[in-house]
Amino acid sequence: MKTIEAHKHLIFFSEQNTDFFTDLLQQKSYSLIFILVDSNTENHCLPHFLAKYNVPENTEVISIEAGEEHKHINTCLGVWEALSELGADRNSLLINLGGGVVTDLGGFVAASFKRGIDFINVPTSLLSMVDASVGGKTGVDLGALKNQVGVIINPQAVVIDTDFLATLPSNEYRSGYAEMLKHGLIQDEHYWKILADYTSITTDDIATHIHHSVGIKNKVVQEDPRENGLRKILNFGHTLGHAIESYCLTEENKTTLLHGEAIAIGMIMEAYLSVELLGLSKEDCDEIKSVFNAIYPKVSFTAKDIEAILQLLIYDKKNSHGKIKFCLLKTIGTPQWDVEVPDALFNNAFRYYAED
Amino acid sequence: MKTIEAHKHLIFFSEQNTDFFTDLLQQKSYSLIFILVDSNTENHCLPHFLAKYNVPENTEVISIEAGEEHKHINTCLGVWEALSELGADRNSLLINLGGGVVTDLGGFVAASFKRGIDFINVPTSLLSMVDASVGGKTGVDLGALKNQVGVIINPQAVVIDTDFLATLPSNEYRSGYAEMLKHGLIQDEHYWKILADYTSITTDDIATHIHHSVGIKNKVVQEDPRENGLRKILNFGHTLGHAIESYCLTEENKTTLLHGEAIAIGMIMEAYLSVELLGLSKEDCDEIKSVFNAIYPKVSFTAKDIEAILQLLIYDKKNSHGKIKFCLLKTIGTPQWDVEVPDALFNNAFRYYAED
Repeated sequence: MKTIEAHKHLIFFSEQNTDFFTDLLQQKSYSLIFILVDSNTENHCLPHFLAKYNVPENTEVISIEAGEEHKHINTCLGVWEALSELGADRNSLLINLGGGVVTDLGGFVAASFKRGIDFINVPTSLLSMVDASVGGKTGVDLGALKNQVGVIINPQAVVIDTDFLATLPSNEYRSGYAEMLKHGLIQDEHYWKILADYTSITTDDIATHIHHSVGIKNKVVQEDPRENGLRKILNFGHTLGHAIESYCLTEENKTTLLHGEAIAIGMIMEAYLSVELLGLSKEDCDEIKSVFNAIYPKVSFTAKDIEAILQLLIYDKKNSHGKIKFCLLKTIGTPQWDVEVPDALFNNAFRYYAED
Repeated sequence: MKTIEAHKHLIFFSEQNTDFFTDLLQQKSYSLIFILVDSNTENHCLPHFLAKYNVPENTEVISIEAGEEHKHINTCLGVWEALSELGADRNSLLINLGGGVVTDLGGFVAASFKRGIDFINVPTSLLSMVDASVGGKTGVDLGALKNQVGVIINPQAVVIDTDFLATLPSNEYRSGYAEMLKHGLIQDEHYWKILADYTSITTDDIATHIHHSVGIKNKVVQEDPRENGLRKILNFGHTLGHAIESYCLTEENKTTLLHGEAIAIGMIMEAYLSVELLGLSKEDCDEIKSVFNAIYPKVSFTAKDIEAILQLLIYDKKNSHGKIKFCLLKTIGTPQWDVEVPDALFNNAFRYYAED
């Protein structure tokens, strides 16, 4: 079994042997263990988890509704109340079994229940394996504003088990793949070239690539856990991508986008901004656009949509003192953060995305 | 001006000169500053604060309803939304101006807004000066269960300014005084003897005693910030006291007790348990009872009340593995934590409190 050592916790890449998990639980002699699932992972992942991993008989399952729209404080309230009613104390453990909503929300619930109990993340989607699994970000949304409420805290451990990917819908799979492509774009041109040929990637390859992606992200967050500098490179594609994602989530006339679908659009537009501001080559930018367009659905934005999305940008949590700062690319593999973008360029970026 | 150095932050004892406060704000060049008040401190403390302390003109005030019953997650939601709407970003500062509800809730709101912004606590009640001002506990209640949701995090600074006590109602003043008496009982017999003579304490004395109490509490939490051992001594009187406080808060037929009033009762009963289990002398126990009974109102409990209070005990956040553990006294000034109490003694403890 491979492991990656993160900030004071281990990321386990689980294959067949799960003794490490039994050891993890025994080391701390938890008073009670709770598993947080959503309505999807309760059906598709919990049976496999209970069959493969050894948990005590009195383990309790707490289930929340699936979907980003349930990633809010009222859901936390329900989980806190359930923990309280089921007798959770400060020595209890919460296992978050699910995608990013479950691990982000469950991490925040655990971090703030009785001023903090232990938690273990078992990401079940590709996105949560390569993204939410490292970095300690937890949180919930506030209306349309993503992750406005949360803390930075690390789990006791993360267990990455690619068995769970077997039941993942293909659009969810592609959503996670967008973050892996991002890891290539910001840190590793060779890796980008491999991943760019999407149809050639086999199920066997993906476990290796997940390990590589987690390694890239882990190295970045280890160097800058509080996002004062280097960690900002992980925001490539996310500044515009988050605004697009938030807008499509709340606007009735727009189809809701998965996270990876939104940041794929964001990465195309921010590649355009990179050409204009940092001299990224036009050829690389066009290649980025064609790779993403081959994998992700194309979305149309009206002038009204664009105006509303740019309004949302000013609320993006990553910006300070009211200025919008981007992470852009000098070349593929060489990012630069804290780049200010003149307002006039945003409409051009949307136009570049819309062109064939 | 006196200061006490706490975990990575300073506690300022503010007299006339407030330059330290101006310096504090300038060191971090905050993007925006917000002051959180409740409906009481908005009227009674905010004008004095704004007149004495130098804050930028664009500082915004956010007000919540006063009272323990508003210390819940919906109030947090209102403050998070207000911060968001008023343009707070990660470099903003929240100043919590108020009693324990404002500093506990405001600390949690700041710790979890955009994964954590800076905050400064300016406690305005005697209780919050001597108790909530150190130790980093933040949180809100979950129904009748006190402080079930929160984190441990320290403010940038605490400003203790006894000017604010001038407008404090006398029952609130006595409520804070109970924590100071506790500091004597658990750590300093000489201090207990001085404070026991309540009517002899002058306004001038109190500033000195606040400094002494904060010093005692700070020393304890510095040694054991996560309450794994020594910090549990601060719970003397609180295990029964919290259950009594929670019960009286939610039970319509009971008068709501202030925190200090409830823990005064808790300390009398836990002194009784100390005699039974740790050999505290009967004379010291009777003295403790007579000192508290001279300052705090006597409350009657029916058999039904007692049963319900004992039920609430099992939810007390400080207990693990379902066992109720107390901090009791071997002598005045010498506490022992993690003492298990046989259930049979609780009724006797209520009887001892009820006796004249």
